[in-house]
Amino acid sequence: MSGGGEEVSNKQIVFRDYVTGFPKEADMVHTTGTIRLKVEEGSKAMVVKNLYLSCDPYMRNRMAKPDGPSYVDSFTPGSPINGFGVAKVLDSGHPDFKEGDLVWGGTGWEEYSLISAPETVFKIAHTDMPLSYYTGLLGMPGLTAYAGFYEVCSPKKGEYVFISAASGAVGQLVGQFAKLMGCYVVGSAGSKQKIDLLKNKFGFDEAFNYKEEQDLNAALKRYFPEGIDIYFENVGGSMLDAVLLNMRLHGRIAVCGMISQYNLDKPEGIYNLFCLVTKRIRMEGFLVFDYYHMYPKFQQWVLPYIKEWKIVYIEDKIEGLANAPSALIRLFTGKNIGKQVVVVALE
Amino acid sequence: MSGGGEEVSNKQIVFRDYVTGFPKEADMVHTTGTIRLKVEEGSKAMVVKNLYLSCDPYMRNRMAKPDGPSYVDSFTPGSPINGFGVAKVLDSGHPDFKEGDLVWGGTGWEEYSLISAPETVFKIAHTDMPLSYYTGLLGMPGLTAYAGFYEVCSPKKGEYVFISAASGAVGQLVGQFAKLMGCYVVGSAGSKQKIDLLKNKFGFDEAFNYKEEQDLNAALKRYFPEGIDIYFENVGGSMLDAVLLNMRLHGRIAVCGMISQYNLDKPEGIYNLFCLVTKRIRMEGFLVFDYYHMYPKFQQWVLPYIKEWKIVYIEDKIEGLANAPSALIRLFTGKNIGKQVVVVALE
Repeated sequence: MSGGGEEVSNKQIVFRDYVTGFPKEADMVHTTGTIRLKVEEGSKAMVVKNLYLSCDPYMRNRMAKPDGPSYVDSFTPGSPINGFGVAKVLDSGHPDFKEGDLVWGGTGWEEYSLISAPETVFKIAHTDMPLSYYTGLLGMPGLTAYAGFYEVCSPKKGEYVFISAASGAVGQLVGQFAKLMGCYVVGSAGSKQKIDLLKNKFGFDEAFNYKEEQDLNAALKRYFPEGIDIYFENVGGSMLDAVLLNMRLHGRIAVCGMISQYNLDKPEGIYNLFCLVTKRIRMEGFLVFDYYHMYPKFQQWVLPYIKEWKIVYIEDKIEGLANAPSALIRLFTGKNIGKQVVVVALE
Repeated sequence: MSGGGEEVSNKQIVFRDYVTGFPKEADMVHTTGTIRLKVEEGSKAMVVKNLYLSCDPYMRNRMAKPDGPSYVDSFTPGSPINGFGVAKVLDSGHPDFKEGDLVWGGTGWEEYSLISAPETVFKIAHTDMPLSYYTGLLGMPGLTAYAGFYEVCSPKKGEYVFISAASGAVGQLVGQFAKLMGCYVVGSAGSKQKIDLLKNKFGFDEAFNYKEEQDLNAALKRYFPEGIDIYFENVGGSMLDAVLLNMRLHGRIAVCGMISQYNLDKPEGIYNLFCLVTKRIRMEGFLVFDYYHMYPKFQQWVLPYIKEWKIVYIEDKIEGLANAPSALIRLFTGKNIGKQVVVVALE
């Protein structure tokens, strides 16, 4: 599908080929294509200028070769990477959007994108917020945290909550939501700097560096002598196995992701699932796509907290489209501190 | 605690010592003790004559050395095995029970038992039913199937239901309940005779012998080309891993037990848990003890079905207290066909 008007050059990050094992920068190629900045007469598409691009763990699953039906489409080798982003509308054939509008939703890793199904993007009404927040706190990760915590975890005041990958785009929010509800909140992360953030910036009661723990079971027992009511699962693997041993009766595990497993050829085994029976645990996977209808409610709920500084958000911004591949890789090496964003253009 | 009256001899099955690995008959010792058949003046206890004893998979967990808090107490080395059974009251100091009453609930593996907390047993009102049913269909396994299916699985008409260990005390009932609801029901079991029962006696749509399948994933794909909505989990291990690959979106796994794992020193690893996320699966463990308050409702619901032969029940009866140890072992070798019961006395 090509737009109307004159062709301009369009820097792009193109997906090279399906990935096994650990992804590397060379799996994504910086190239230059062309695009027309006007939509064709009668089309409902729109052309946008990309401002911020979002790096999210689920994108690793899109790098894998399609192997039967999946919850996400794989990237197409030879085509630009796509994902969530914030963009400015340059031209629109869709009645809901007009030139100059700011939007967030699915877009391409390139300077300009043709969005052929604008129904999949949200118009940004609150432009007084930092626009990059619409890749995080006010975007897909924010809604993930909101739906995952309030809809899946069934939280109650005073409960004991554990969050892994707790300083990430979603984890930092779940912890703050749980504190707002009056829970005891502990997070794990992979560096001293992240642990400091959890305790001093996000208000977690405790936090620990899982890389410094010989025995995750013992670490969890130290922070949860009475056990865990709610585990917000972002990592999988040995952390999940240790958590199962430390859950309380009728505990809940909301499975948001398992980032520790995405680059393995075969996932690690989980051995302690019989704890589900002995402790009557509910373990439930969820995807934010099922909760998009809640976005307006979420936004209305969260904006006052942001304005009153009761919810804060840490982003890790990398500048320049050319640096997008290294930004994405940072998620899997754990180098990002907070939500990983690529700044393509400021306006 | 000793009763009043004259002492009589009391044959017993005594638990020898904590078990690791596969239990064997010699872990239970046939001996003779004594008991008084009258309760002491002022006591609220009762003395019963045991008629039927129940062999249940969870008893394997009671044979293990206690290792921190558990959902069941371990047996006491040197004391009689205890579990569920049907008994006749010989003497009672409790106002709710009198001589001649029939009861089901917790009792000992012996001819006569002193029940010091009669609140834990149910009086049998419907004595027109086979009394042994109160160890199965009308007892703990029946309530397990009822609560597990209706309360945990959230079943809907027309859904695809898979049950492992499907000819067992609980599985045979879950399958029949699911058929009554209009579901498509497939069961797995470990012998041709059991498969025949599932298809011809219990009305399952399909059944397969897991021991004859090289590839459980392929077997499940054959019987569930559109996937599984509900998995009633009784076995764990590689079957669970294969089921995870075959679940449908928003599927539910009710974890009742994991009998394939109970005799292993270390459970098998489960590798496909990321399916919980991609398919938004809810996996929930449960214990019948949380649903005892539903027993009257369950009994009222199920009795008409039994009387109209719309629910049938297969028992595997072994006669004689002395054969109780071999009866229990049969559960773990899969030799039992249907609910394993020990007949101690007929009246």
